[in-house]
Amino acid sequence: MSGSSYGTLFKISTWGESHGEGVGVVIDGCPAGLSLKVADIQKDLDRRKTGQSKVTTTRKETDRVHILSGIFKGKTTGTPIALWVKNRDADSSKYEEIKNMFRPGHADFTYFMKYGFRDYRGGGRSSARETVGRVAAGAVAKKLLARKRIKIIGYTKQIGPYIAKKIDFKQIEKNIVRCPDKKIAQKMVDHILHARKKGDSVGGVVEIIIKGVPAGLGEPVFDRLDADLAKAMMSIPAVKGIEVGIGFEAATMYGSECNDPYTYKGKKITTKTNHSGGIHGGISNGSDIILRMVVKPTSSINKVQNTVTTDGEKALIKVEGRHDPCVSPRAVPIAEAMAALTLIDHLMRHQFSQLK
Amino acid sequence: MSGSSYGTLFKISTWGESHGEGVGVVIDGCPAGLSLKVADIQKDLDRRKTGQSKVTTTRKETDRVHILSGIFKGKTTGTPIALWVKNRDADSSKYEEIKNMFRPGHADFTYFMKYGFRDYRGGGRSSARETVGRVAAGAVAKKLLARKRIKIIGYTKQIGPYIAKKIDFKQIEKNIVRCPDKKIAQKMVDHILHARKKGDSVGGVVEIIIKGVPAGLGEPVFDRLDADLAKAMMSIPAVKGIEVGIGFEAATMYGSECNDPYTYKGKKITTKTNHSGGIHGGISNGSDIILRMVVKPTSSINKVQNTVTTDGEKALIKVEGRHDPCVSPRAVPIAEAMAALTLIDHLMRHQFSQLK
Amino acid sequence: MSGSSYGTLFKISTWGESHGEGVGVVIDGCPAGLSLKVADIQKDLDRRKTGQSKVTTTRKETDRVHILSGIFKGKTTGTPIALWVKNRDADSSKYEEIKNMFRPGHADFTYFMKYGFRDYRGGGRSSARETVGRVAAGAVAKKLLARKRIKIIGYTKQIGPYIAKKIDFKQIEKNIVRCPDKKIAQKMVDHILHARKKGDSVGGVVEIIIKGVPAGLGEPVFDRLDADLAKAMMSIPAVKGIEVGIGFEAATMYGSECNDPYTYKGKKITTKTNHSGGIHGGISNGSDIILRMVVKPTSSINKVQNTVTTDGEKALIKVEGRHDPCVSPRAVPIAEAMAALTLIDHLMRHQFSQLK
Amino acid sequence: MSGSSYGTLFKISTWGESHGEGVGVVIDGCPAGLSLKVADIQKDLDRRKTGQSKVTTTRKETDRVHILSGIFKGKTTGTPIALWVKNRDADSSKYEEIKNMFRPGHADFTYFMKYGFRDYRGGGRSSARETVGRVAAGAVAKKLLARKRIKIIGYTKQIGPYIAKKIDFKQIEKNIVRCPDKKIAQKMVDHILHARKKGDSVGGVVEIIIKGVPAGLGEPVFDRLDADLAKAMMSIPAVKGIEVGIGFEAATMYGSECNDPYTYKGKKITTKTNHSGGIHGGISNGSDIILRMVVKPTSSINKVQNTVTTDGEKALIKVEGRHDPCVSPRAVPIAEAMAALTLIDHLMRHQFSQLK
Repeated sequence: MSGSSYGTLFKISTWGESHGEGVGVVIDGCPAGLSLKVADIQKDLDRRKTGQSKVTTTRKETDRVHILSGIFKGKTTGTPIALWVKNRDADSSKYEEIKNMFRPGHADFTYFMKYGFRDYRGGGRSSARETVGRVAAGAVAKKLLARKRIKIIGYTKQIGPYIAKKIDFKQIEKNIVRCPDKKIAQKMVDHILHARKKGDSVGGVVEIIIKGVPAGLGEPVFDRLDADLAKAMMSIPAVKGIEVGIGFEAATMYGSECNDPYTYKGKKITTKTNHSGGIHGGISNGSDIILRMVVKPTSSINKVQNTVTTDGEKALIKVEGRHDPCVSPRAVPIAEAMAALTLIDHLMRHQFSQLK
Repeated sequence: MSGSSYGTLFKISTWGESHGEGVGVVIDGCPAGLSLKVADIQKDLDRRKTGQSKVTTTRKETDRVHILSGIFKGKTTGTPIALWVKNRDADSSKYEEIKNMFRPGHADFTYFMKYGFRDYRGGGRSSARETVGRVAAGAVAKKLLARKRIKIIGYTKQIGPYIAKKIDFKQIEKNIVRCPDKKIAQKMVDHILHARKKGDSVGGVVEIIIKGVPAGLGEPVFDRLDADLAKAMMSIPAVKGIEVGIGFEAATMYGSECNDPYTYKGKKITTKTNHSGGIHGGISNGSDIILRMVVKPTSSINKVQNTVTTDGEKALIKVEGRHDPCVSPRAVPIAEAMAALTLIDHLMRHQFSQLK
Repeated sequence: MSGSSYGTLFKISTWGESHGEGVGVVIDGCPAGLSLKVADIQKDLDRRKTGQSKVTTTRKETDRVHILSGIFKGKTTGTPIALWVKNRDADSSKYEEIKNMFRPGHADFTYFMKYGFRDYRGGGRSSARETVGRVAAGAVAKKLLARKRIKIIGYTKQIGPYIAKKIDFKQIEKNIVRCPDKKIAQKMVDHILHARKKGDSVGGVVEIIIKGVPAGLGEPVFDRLDADLAKAMMSIPAVKGIEVGIGFEAATMYGSECNDPYTYKGKKITTKTNHSGGIHGGISNGSDIILRMVVKPTSSINKVQNTVTTDGEKALIKVEGRHDPCVSPRAVPIAEAMAALTLIDHLMRHQFSQLK
Repeated sequence: MSGSSYGTLFKISTWGESHGEGVGVVIDGCPAGLSLKVADIQKDLDRRKTGQSKVTTTRKETDRVHILSGIFKGKTTGTPIALWVKNRDADSSKYEEIKNMFRPGHADFTYFMKYGFRDYRGGGRSSARETVGRVAAGAVAKKLLARKRIKIIGYTKQIGPYIAKKIDFKQIEKNIVRCPDKKIAQKMVDHILHARKKGDSVGGVVEIIIKGVPAGLGEPVFDRLDADLAKAMMSIPAVKGIEVGIGFEAATMYGSECNDPYTYKGKKITTKTNHSGGIHGGISNGSDIILRMVVKPTSSINKVQNTVTTDGEKALIKVEGRHDPCVSPRAVPIAEAMAALTLIDHLMRHQFSQLK
């Protein structure tokens, strides 16, 4: 049970590493009868792939998905869907010279301590390449959610000191940082390129809005919707914090400010404010679900850093190669995928809340 | 699968509600041979109970724990340990008059939407009273962790605008807000009492430090130690955000600042800084684990608020009764318990990382 | 994870041992809105209890069930239902003298080897008393199944050489061995009493018929309905074998005999024969589900037997006390409960087989 | 959660169907550091594959396994091991003409009822081809078990009326029915060939002996070793019954005969007889584990049978093609694999029975 499965009813198991035969996922729990094509999945993989713009790594992976099972005449059969993306641009030679060193910020040291040795080629299983499987499975989850009019929108909220103010969903895919604020987007791009020029990297914040969620999703007391979303997001490489709704601002608020008073919108009960981010007591209340995650600056930088070797020596390391100067733009589809996987699982679990 | 279980190897299932026969927990997975007494568990329940100081609710619950199974001659038998705390001070009459209204900030509305009706007496299952079971089980987990010299320390880091600067563990239990900074503690108390006087409540931040964790704990890629801790913390009532290590500050940092360079401390590899909060790639690195959670201001306030009734009317509600003006002091042992339950589970899971 | 939970969506966790505070169960996953009274549960507990007739142990336990949580105004709330039965007639003194000996046929030796020591009072957790929790939870499952017109009928099929030929459901509860064949029932009673007189015990076969199961239940390829039923039945103390439909007779059949040809019964597709016992490829086909389990003769007998002590000595043991001379009559409600728990779980899981 | 995963700590997820891109398995939970080669796995796949002798189907599949992940420099890395076997000899044309008919004995009808439609090419997911993934994963489990000197031996115990009397392990792989009794083996072969000539098929019994199991494996009360083995075996296509030790013979025994008296063998406690099949109270007692499963005659026969069509018509069906006239010889490695997967999982779970 090395932790590579996610979900209880819509269950995925990812496999694969940076420099092996490829990466993949098995989806166990997709109902029969869903029309599913390669293009449905490829669309999101293309948003995640390397080399898509000047703010991502220049490595080039085509990331073509192969459907190995679970589809018959264009529809899901109700049995496991196996998806596979072959590894292509995998030059592992450059990792030979640092194979005895631990890259700061990476999981090299912890994998070494956990497993007794490690696949040093590109981080092996700890590589963000593993998220290919999540994005592929997430695309299937999104298709199921769309049938229930649930939509997940992800974007870059912040990079360095630049915070999006205007949230215009139509702008998101029109700029290379996936920021919904056109003006701030340009500042974010400049900030990233400036850091890259210095061989450095920057952090950011990704925000997820989930629209159309019916009230009632979430399984108290442990499998709350917010708790499961927190786990989902925190399981993405480089994420160091999660907020739902008002988040950390709640520390300085009074109850009379923070509570969301109820009101009617037509015949539907709703709240006047949405400080809760659409979740009360771990259960969705029908308002938009709002969550944020912070991604730390990419650990791989083109600067000399202090480290140690497996042989007991202090050393200097410079991680050569092509790195993302900021994780955020490519993290957006990954965060969407994890949100989608969490939502579909809870939508299914919720079916049993009441007698029918 | 209504979500009331937590853990994979050290598994707990809590049950009970605010105004029923009591609250309890079944622990399935505690190894045989652990010496376990009522006092081991009662200690933490007393730190969680109501009426312990002037900054908590004045309700009085003794919260005596009964061990119903799993112990023979003072030692655990390896079979399920059932723990039960009877409800005492449960006056449900005051809830009769608001049984058709939804209390803002509470889970009344979402439980109603999820289950079709709700136990309106004190929130029923959504009451924080449910955490009694967690704290009881957490005490057993702490005892197991202590054998491996792993120690969990929780405290109030912030209440309103007041943030602890000096972290002196010895101070924590010496003041009623459980703040490690003596001077700030007094300001926190004043802030809470001032809010209570106005019928209001305040928010805060709880910080958890885990000492003595060996490197290697955490199961990538989904069951990362930080991901599971995030879920554990977010499953606590009123929590709206989680940070590990540097947390949201990472958004404005550069990679060259944020990375923790490796060095030797004697023969042991460690990091010069601990921005990661002791976790890299979802696996502990041997440094202190540091995490924070924000708790929103208590939803129950003695002010008139806008709401609606189940009959389709707008209404005004005033939630009478005795409430905690700030959740933080009593949330400390709950957060410790959830951290302990997560750690023991990962300590057990880690046994299989390498061949033996 | 000591194995005391059963089910995936309708999940139960039993706890308790022979001579502790009692035995109980927590049900997590019962939908809200089910009317549930003590009497619904007590009915089956009374069929399981000791001292009910001259072919059971003369020990007297009233086995009154207490509902500790999960019910509000007579209906389930969708949150965990905790049920507790106190232990009464627990005389542990007689176990003192054999506390260093292993009773042949019992789990004394294996519990000792597994846990390093054992609760020698009445077998502790290995006592059949643990099944109280199963029967209580099974009664709730039966109530849910009844709403879908699914009915579970259990009876004694065989005791010693005596096999029921006539299957008249109305006879089952009219005789003390729960045999559907009136004439054979009397022979079974005589066989049991004869064995008891000699201080011995006898084995038997329990058969379960499940009526009204819709086609489609079962989750290939591992969680087949027959596989899960096999596990459920084999988890009952004293069971040494399971058959579905034709069972072991299939070894000597030809395919042309064994296959069940399809036909129409009105507009409904059904099979002419039911050798499969209502399950093909691990999925129910709409016919009656038929399964059998063999129970070995009760291990506790009033004869001197060879054994060894924990101190390394060979010894003679005579297990004093009041024992069931045949497990079968009281095993019927236990087998029904395990079948009910398995069926309700699969009925819930099946909801996701197709898009809706 | 369509049921395609097995195990709790050593967890496998199989995928794939008869006429798709192939069949495979993901193993999540294999410790790091195990030396693993293609040959380790291929060996058992060759014992399972089609066309291996005159008593199996004449279809020819090479079943070459590809290791896609989880291995670095010849050793397992502790992360998921993905194994893939491409489908080769997949002629689906012959299924076109019977695509609207339900083959008697097969899962055609139940899959149709469960999922709303079905992959009619060779049974799709219900094909025994799915067991390729189990056998591949089982080979890895066997390698881990071998390090603890646990060995699993499977063989054909009975075919039709012919029952092996002499159990000579060395004979098993020397005859094409995998029978340990040389003389009986020949009679079994003749019986199978005779049935095939008539277009018919025959049933049989597979027995599994597990040697070297330490006392203490099994997690009462539900995850008993025998209960989990029963589920494992019953999840194999065509299995209709399971026995442990004395099995159904227990129905006609007396307690004084059936109980296994304890004795000393040197300093080790053991039993004089092994009627229990090595398991008491769901926990291994250190003796050989003995279990049997009955396999029904192959459902595909070359005879005209009655059936119905999806269009509401009665019909006659003749299932053309190359079928195994008896499942048993090829079921042996599948049964061994399921036993191995169950044993390794319980060996891992047992690590937590006592404090260390």
